[in-house]
Amino acid sequence: MPSAPTSGPVVVTGGAGAIGSILVAALLRRGHAIRVIDNLSGGRVEQLPSSDRLRFVRADLREPATFQAEFQDAVAVWHLAANPDIRLGTEQPRIDLENGTLATFHVLEAARRADVGSLVFSSSSVVYGAARVFPTPEEYGPLLPESMYGAGKLGAEALVSGYAHSYGLTAHIYRFANIIGPGMNHGILPDFFEKLRRDPTRLEVLGDGSQAKSYLRTEDCVDGMLTGFDRAREPVNVFNLGTTDRISVRSIAEKVVAAHGGRARIDYTGGPRGWVGDIPQQLLAIDRIRRLGWNPSTDSAGAIDRTIAEMRRERSPA
Amino acid sequence: MPSAPTSGPVVVTGGAGAIGSILVAALLRRGHAIRVIDNLSGGRVEQLPSSDRLRFVRADLREPATFQAEFQDAVAVWHLAANPDIRLGTEQPRIDLENGTLATFHVLEAARRADVGSLVFSSSSVVYGAARVFPTPEEYGPLLPESMYGAGKLGAEALVSGYAHSYGLTAHIYRFANIIGPGMNHGILPDFFEKLRRDPTRLEVLGDGSQAKSYLRTEDCVDGMLTGFDRAREPVNVFNLGTTDRISVRSIAEKVVAAHGGRARIDYTGGPRGWVGDIPQQLLAIDRIRRLGWNPSTDSAGAIDRTIAEMRRERSPA
Repeated sequence: MPSAPTSGPVVVTGGAGAIGSILVAALLRRGHAIRVIDNLSGGRVEQLPSSDRLRFVRADLREPATFQAEFQDAVAVWHLAANPDIRLGTEQPRIDLENGTLATFHVLEAARRADVGSLVFSSSSVVYGAARVFPTPEEYGPLLPESMYGAGKLGAEALVSGYAHSYGLTAHIYRFANIIGPGMNHGILPDFFEKLRRDPTRLEVLGDGSQAKSYLRTEDCVDGMLTGFDRAREPVNVFNLGTTDRISVRSIAEKVVAAHGGRARIDYTGGPRGWVGDIPQQLLAIDRIRRLGWNPSTDSAGAIDRTIAEMRRERSPA
Repeated sequence: MPSAPTSGPVVVTGGAGAIGSILVAALLRRGHAIRVIDNLSGGRVEQLPSSDRLRFVRADLREPATFQAEFQDAVAVWHLAANPDIRLGTEQPRIDLENGTLATFHVLEAARRADVGSLVFSSSSVVYGAARVFPTPEEYGPLLPESMYGAGKLGAEALVSGYAHSYGLTAHIYRFANIIGPGMNHGILPDFFEKLRRDPTRLEVLGDGSQAKSYLRTEDCVDGMLTGFDRAREPVNVFNLGTTDRISVRSIAEKVVAAHGGRARIDYTGGPRGWVGDIPQQLLAIDRIRRLGWNPSTDSAGAIDRTIAEMRRERSPA
């Protein structure tokens, strides 16, 4: 069993994002030199920690010539970059093909050419589609994603597995629950905050509020990925990352409204789904990663509460 | 539950191939007008039945502008085209990305733009990778293909599912065992026949001969696809197609040598796999399609015997 590389440069795609920037800080603490590749479609350079071991390269993964050189001598690549707006994929089906599947192909090719031994990929629970088993284990099938975003993620997983077996790369695939934390500009909490900023008297909620999902904090997500990376060294290692509970969209809406003074009326658009491609019920089995010693520091409700409190502080006038 | 379209034009990609040409004949018998799109990388026009309801278009699925018009007014598209040479994908990782995943994207986009209501996709048991459960059911996971060909097929399945749910297409995905029959130029039987043609005294077999897989005849495969198409109308329908038995590579080699007079020596290169990406053990659970009334007309050994006899006749001097 090969051991995880403990030194040498590491490439992080999407490293300027909300998850990536926390990962970069953790990898710097481990002594790695870090090369961040980000097109800043979702990330922000200001989120990156400051270090003379950190190099930031603004490049788009759809153009491999612009970033191939960064893979030279790297011991691992953490591929987190993705289209951050899931709903956009239905209007523009090329977005997730290009930013999901094809970008991953270019990252894998760059890794193969530079002989990088290890690749970590941030996948998503959306690969399960509308699962019929809860909590959903990694062995669940068939994998029938219901959105173009999910199709892009599953296509990327397929390529990661094909490369791992064809060219001797060690791969870690993490299927994320909803990841929340500071610095995010997409997802339920930024959406609700933005709606209340525009109209403090009314919060429109897509669907009937019965959608219920698992929410994991960014720092727990990074800690889980590092745990799997350090302790699982099969050719391809697949782990769900989430919490053991879920929370309804209705509860989240009520928490956000309460944090804004409790005056806004909540209007539901109705129906069990928020939008085309929405997976209304989601809860992942996380036994596999827990057996390696990882546990989330808080449950879904706690993750929501903590993030709401941070966002209130971020957004309140100084 | 929408019913299967029973009239109107049907597009068949890869329709000049060994499976496609049998499908085209069956669809003609059902009264459809057929538009075959094939780049003739594996197919041959001479295999196509002759009919004034059949239009053949030589086009490559990587160039959507060359075939979009054929989708006009079509009621269904059967997407069978693929890179026919699995082993080539390891040397040239772009081949299956382009001919598998991207070609499928272009077919799906053409179907969406022309408002085609139904799509059938020929996937493969290779999406299961090296399964740990035999016979392997459609619910098996995680799906970790071991070849670039398998990655291309799983990426294509993901797109089919994403399109079906995003745009209201009804989809049928068939995961094939090894399909054999007349008119094939890739696979174990054409390989063995070609080796014995070059050197009638010796048959080199990749691996130790212990690989054991399920083999299904082309006509049974087409019959199974039509059964699922007619009788299952979920948004996405996934079916394994194979036989309930498997046969070893050693047995196949012995049968081929016997059919050539029994004089050739069989040399094994050794090792449990034939090549990088080979899945040495394969047996699919076919209960789901059997519940709809389909059964293969022969088992794997019978399919091999029948195909060897046909190939002997095809290749013997008139």
